[in-house]
Amino acid sequence: MAARLSDDERAQKLQPLLDGAGWALVGGRDAIQKSFVFDSFTSAFAFMAIVALHAEKMDHHPEWFNVYNRVDVTLSTHDCQGLSGRDVALAAHIEQAAAKFL
Amino acid sequence: MAARLSDDERAQKLQPLLDGAGWALVGGRDAIQKSFVFDSFTSAFAFMAIVALHAEKMDHHPEWFNVYNRVDVTLSTHDCQGLSGRDVALAAHIEQAAAKFL
Repeated sequence: MAARLSDDERAQKLQPLLDGAGWALVGGRDAIQKSFVFDSFTSAFAFMAIVALHAEKMDHHPEWFNVYNRVDVTLSTHDCQGLSGRDVALAAHIEQAAAKFL
Repeated sequence: MAARLSDDERAQKLQPLLDGAGWALVGGRDAIQKSFVFDSFTSAFAFMAIVALHAEKMDHHPEWFNVYNRVDVTLSTHDCQGLSGRDVALAAHIEQAAAKFL
């Protein structure tokens, strides 16, 4: 069972995502969001396919919206109704996947 | 350039999607939406992969949101800012793809 990030973990693990990596806290819930824009639908969906395989392996899945070349990703952990270390880990995978196409 | 569906086309091609196939008009815009629920994330994403290949081949793409085993699909045509025959055609592909998993 995933636990919500503590204040220390938020300062150390979450803050770097918010400070320069383009993630933002979502209003009204304990979640983070980032919008990725690629050069085409093909690149956007290829990114999603890579993330999907990671997510399934982790058994931790994003909420995401895609229209053409844009993918809006929201991360939060259902078990603890908020941000856990699993979201930070998935965000790292997502950044690696996006870097292949950006 | 795609044209918006005429009244006749709406009666003949769109209405069947609205009457029994689970599609609904979206409030505030000329678009249709349907929510698909699968048995797992793997099935949901496999469905999305099939639809993505069709969409790219048609050069007509859905707007869609996925969380775990649920995929919410919205169809509309950017060119004409509303529903065109391309949306009806893509809806048929989407139904075929979903039928593999439901």
